[in-house]
This record gives sequence, structure tokens and C-alpha cells, in this order.
Amino acid sequence: MKNFNFYNPTKIYFGKGEVEKVGKLVKEYGNTVLLVYGKSSIKKMGLYDQVIKLLEKEEIEIIDFGGIDPNPRIESIRKGGDLCKKHNVDLVLAVGGGSTIDAAKGIASAAMYDGDPWDFYSYKVESTGALPIATILTLAATGSEMNAGSVVTNFETKEKNGWGSPYTNPKFSILDPENTYSVSYHQTGCGIVDSLTHVYEFYFSNEKAYLNDRVCEAIMKTIIYYGPKALENPRDYEARSNLMFGSTLALNGVSGFAKDFEGFNHTTEHVLSAFYDIAHADGLAVLAPHWMEYILSEKTVDKFYEFAVNVWAVNPGRDKMDVAKKGIKKVFEFYKTLDMPLYLKDLNIIDPPIDEIVNKAVKNKTIGRYVQLTKEDVKNILKSAI
Amino acid sequence: MKNFNFYNPTKIYFGKGEVEKVGKLVKEYGNTVLLVYGKSSIKKMGLYDQVIKLLEKEEIEIIDFGGIDPNPRIESIRKGGDLCKKHNVDLVLAVGGGSTIDAAKGIASAAMYDGDPWDFYSYKVESTGALPIATILTLAATGSEMNAGSVVTNFETKEKNGWGSPYTNPKFSILDPENTYSVSYHQTGCGIVDSLTHVYEFYFSNEKAYLNDRVCEAIMKTIIYYGPKALENPRDYEARSNLMFGSTLALNGVSGFAKDFEGFNHTTEHVLSAFYDIAHADGLAVLAPHWMEYILSEKTVDKFYEFAVNVWAVNPGRDKMDVAKKGIKKVFEFYKTLDMPLYLKDLNIIDPPIDEIVNKAVKNKTIGRYVQLTKEDVKNILKSAI
Repeated sequence: MKNFNFYNPTKIYFGKGEVEKVGKLVKEYGNTVLLVYGKSSIKKMGLYDQVIKLLEKEEIEIIDFGGIDPNPRIESIRKGGDLCKKHNVDLVLAVGGGSTIDAAKGIASAAMYDGDPWDFYSYKVESTGALPIATILTLAATGSEMNAGSVVTNFETKEKNGWGSPYTNPKFSILDPENTYSVSYHQTGCGIVDSLTHVYEFYFSNEKAYLNDRVCEAIMKTIIYYGPKALENPRDYEARSNLMFGSTLALNGVSGFAKDFEGFNHTTEHVLSAFYDIAHADGLAVLAPHWMEYILSEKTVDKFYEFAVNVWAVNPGRDKMDVAKKGIKKVFEFYKTLDMPLYLKDLNIIDPPIDEIVNKAVKNKTIGRYVQLTKEDVKNILKSAI
Repeated sequence: MKNFNFYNPTKIYFGKGEVEKVGKLVKEYGNTVLLVYGKSSIKKMGLYDQVIKLLEKEEIEIIDFGGIDPNPRIESIRKGGDLCKKHNVDLVLAVGGGSTIDAAKGIASAAMYDGDPWDFYSYKVESTGALPIATILTLAATGSEMNAGSVVTNFETKEKNGWGSPYTNPKFSILDPENTYSVSYHQTGCGIVDSLTHVYEFYFSNEKAYLNDRVCEAIMKTIIYYGPKALENPRDYEARSNLMFGSTLALNGVSGFAKDFEGFNHTTEHVLSAFYDIAHADGLAVLAPHWMEYILSEKTVDKFYEFAVNVWAVNPGRDKMDVAKKGIKKVFEFYKTLDMPLYLKDLNIIDPPIDEIVNKAVKNKTIGRYVQLTKEDVKNILKSAI
């Protein structure tokens, strides 16, 4: 097991009715809050009104900042940061899914920086602080509610970059599974694929870490077990609960304490999203199964055998390669039952500029830590996913 | 899944050579440290000298406080607290196993309290603060390195009580698996049983929490897989690593986020220890398997079936009760391979005053949350363990 640090100071309030605490919790940080949210969904479900009322009860001044896009734009970060400075905001409260929370992290950092916040996302400048961040989660997917990461897109430069600082872990996050009841079929599928892919990024690794692998399998099994149940009955509390905290554990340190992030899937998907503005998980759904097929070899067969047997309940057998292939086939089949795309054409991406995409994805000689892939490799994977 | 809070602010530094960081880490909290440790083991292994040197390099004044007992006494807490007050200690550094760390938590709290620290452990007074606590772990067992709990014994009143406060989570803990190479065969077995029993206390629960159960199984499987390897080769780094972080995860919130602590095993063992000063895990080894046998019924068979199949790799079968029994038999067998006691007589406890023990253990009408046991039940379990 490799050396690692394990630290996560975000406080989680999980369960029915926990949103009621938000006013008092925010009040501990001050009297002015920037309320960050996306489009109309939190208004439709009544959460917006509820939060406003709870904050007003504590006499907290609310600076309203809605309209965050599903792939949050650097423009929103700039604008939100300026609002914080103008109104002396004490805490940035994100109400929404991963995009909204990611935006809040950028905004809270921009608020304490005089330059352009893209400096952080382009790794030019290190952040030296951020306003306190808090979240009310409405989508089980990205894990952003309990980590420091933030992904923001710059469509000018066609870049979608992930970044985080020691100051961007939320102080607290409120996770009420009932707030995900209204998540659509497709968005629920996206959440399932997103959180599974987070686990893949740690599970498929050259680092030997038995405990870590078993924990990864626990999270994957849970998501696979409850995903279809939530799709069948969107108001299944047990299913929504397990998916919600499963997606948190998938990217809060617990799934990857002794592992390096593999990287191929996320890096390549970010490039796809920056080209086509597709949903992150749609891109991941297309990439991961083809990537698995491509990297399966004598060198990786033991890991994929474990994956097949322990996660997908494929019967063990003497022909390890055969069992491994059956496991990958299960991934394809599972994604199909979720109605997720399996090929780029399912996303209406026809004749993509593969070389250009590959060049953006593979900035150094290779991409990926588990299996180091050259530009040629990535080209082949993309071709198989056409 | 029930509502829960999930929060653990301890920072873990895991791996070979991490102890080298201790000087600089302590320095962040001040210039005077109370160094708490047990008997001679950390001196024998050279860790004591290493830590002294690292602290002195940072010009940190060291107040030396060794001699903590395996079941730490309230007298040590009082004395340590007084030393902190006298020398204006800035941080309490525990170097050792769970007993030493538990003592450090009591001492750090006593340092900020004018009365008798037994007031905390007898639940008479709430603590309002503690000095910062840090640990260097030398035994994979109690999980105390990443939680707020502390168990202290008062032999005057024959009480061994668990307690913790919002201030007793260590600020940081350094976990180098190499520091457990010299742990004896018996102590290694104790650590295995202790951490397994922590997981049992959450796993056997009426709370339905699929994700939580799978994570519990991940931790138990790891401990069962690597326990015998560490006994066979005490310098097996992978084995020691997995046992070390496995025992941390067994009681840092990750194993029980959506569960209540069952309680029978720990509460009853604490009474046994307070009577006989036996090692905590020796008591647990005797109690848990007999407890499992006693509570197995039509009501609990599904859980024990899961336990048998998922944790002990018993073949699934139609006769659930039969499979469940096989699982419990595996626990007995496994403990035997560890050379752990299975009966009270193995601990030289002959003709114990069962009624007196039962009356101390069952303070209210029943004990245990998963299966509520009356005094009569506990008597029967103890009799089966004679």
C-alpha cells in the first residue's frame, strides 16, 4: 500500500428534513450569503422557497445568483466572484448538483483573488484562500459535495479543467435523498455512470491495496444494485439514499485513499465536453466500456477478472480472460438498461475531429496511469466508440 | 437509511517514514508537548528515541509521561492533566496503541477542567474543551487514532467507561505499518479481533443500509484475509498496512455511518475487564461468537446468512439457517487459528460471579440494540462461554 494522506473536513448532514438546519448552520459563518443555483429545477421542487425562508428566518441577507450551466462557465465564476466582493459575502451556498457546487468553489476562490479566476483553472496561480462554501445537494453524481474539486469550462479556449485548493472543501453539505426524487430518468442514469466512473478511476490501478479495492467494490455493488430501482421508482427512499451517499463515498477519499487517479476517462471526457457541451456522464458512458475493452490484456486480466466476479457477479471460471470479457460485457449491458449512450453517434457526434480531440486529451506522451495510452491508443478507443 | 451526521476532521499520514513529519506537525500547535506512552515497547523498537530527536530538532520542550497501562487508569488521566496545567502544554502527543491514545484524550480534556476527570467518564459533566491531541500509532486495533472515543478504567468503582467529546478527535495521526512489525503474536490477534468486533457492532443492526453493510464486509474481509498473513510473517508490509488502515476504518465513521452501535459485546467486555483486568480483545474474542450463537434465530437468520456468505465465503444454500450456522462456526475456527481465547476458562476466569457481572452490564432492562437482551439472556451467553 502506498503512502497517503487521508483528510476530509466536510461535515455531512444526511437524511429527510435535514435542510431545515441550513439557516442556523449558515448563520455560524455570517450574515450575508451568495445563493448559487442552476436553472429552474430547485424552484419547481419548492426547495428554493424553502431555503429562502430558512435563511430569512435567521435574518441572513441573500445575494441571488442563479443560472449556473450544467458545464459551468468561467464567466459565471467571474461574475459570482465580483458579486461576493461587492456585497461582502460571508459564505457561498450552492443549492443543486455538481455543476452548481463546482461553480460555488470557483466563485468562493475568485472572491478572494484580484486576478482572473481562470488563472486557477489553468494552473497559473495558486489560490491562497476562499470564502466558506456550503451545499445542499439535489443530484447524486459528482461527489463535489464532499471534496475540494471543481471543474469549469472555458469555451473560448475549448478547455474544461479540473482544479481544487486546500480551501475549497465545503464546510458542510446537506444531503436529503428526497431532494433527488424529481431527478429525471436520464439525469439519474448520468449520476449512476458518473459515480461508477469515479470508482473505476481508483479501482483500475497498479497500486496494490486490497482494502481499497474491497471498498471500491462495496460502492460499485451498491450503485449497480440501487440504480435500476431508482429508475423504476424515483421515490424509492432506500434507493435514492444509497445512490446519494454512494456517490459521495465514490469521490471523497474513501474510494481512493491508497490509489492514484487513473485519469483517462475523465481527461478525455472533459475534452469531449469542451468540444460538444455534452453531459459529463454521457461522455463517460461512451468512453469507459470501450476503454475497458481496449486495455484488457494478459497484463490486466487479473484485475478485470476480479471486477467481473466481485462487482458484476459473473461466475468464476478457469478461463480468466473469458470471465473478464463477460464482466466488461455486463458494463455495456448495464449502461444500456439505464438508456445511456454507448457510442458517440448516440450523442449525435458524427465524424468528430478525432486528431484534434486526441491532441487536446494527450498533452504529454501518454494518458492514464493504469495503462499508459499513447495518442494512437486513444485514437483507437475513440474509433471503436464512433 | 436513517438520518446521520458524517464528520471526521482527523488528518491521517499513512505509510513508511511518515513519522519524520512529527516535529514540524507538532510545531504548528506550539512549543511544549506532553509525550504520552505505555511501557517499554516504543523504547525497544527505537521509536521513542526517534520521536524525541525529531521534536528536539524543532526546539519543542518535551514533558515525558510514560507508563500508561493497557487498560488505562483514571489515575493516569488525573496525573497527566496536572502535568499539562503545570507545564502549559500545547499539545498532547500519544505514541502507542489504543490505550495510550485513549489516555491522551482524557489527559487533554483534564488539562482544561478544574474538577476530577472521572466526572467526564461517569457522564456527570460535559467537557468544554481539550488541548490538541496527536498520535503516532503502533498497534492496529482500536481505531482510537481517528475518532473521539476514550475508554478509561476506575478500579475503585470497578467501572470501565467509554466517553468522548467534540474536542477529542486527534488533529493528526501518523500510521506507519512498520511500527507494528514488533507487535507480538497475541497482540496482533487481539488487534484483529478488536477491529472485527467494531465492525460487528455496526453490521449487526436493524437499520437497513445496504451501502453501509457492503463497506462493513469490505473491512471484515480485509482483516480476515491479512490477519493470518501478519501472524505468519510479522514483517509483511502489505498485511500490516491493510490491518492498520482496516482497523482505522472499522471505527472512524466509515463502517457505521448509517447504523447505531449494537453495544452488547463492548459493554459486557468492559465489565469483564473491570473485574479481571484482561485484554479488551481477549474478552471480545470470548463473547462475540457465543453472542452470535445465542441471538441466531428466524428473525436474525437473513443477516447471519449474509455474514456467512459475503464475509466468510460459505457456499450459499437453500437452508439459510444451516449456512448461517456455518458462518458462526467460521468465526470460532478463525479465532482459534489466531490462538485467541474462546472460553472464559482460557483466560483463567473460573467460577466468575455471573450475577454480579450481569448486573453491572445490564444497567437498564436490556442490553444491545440489534437483539435486546435481558439479564437472563446475558447470563445464558456467559454460561455458554464458561
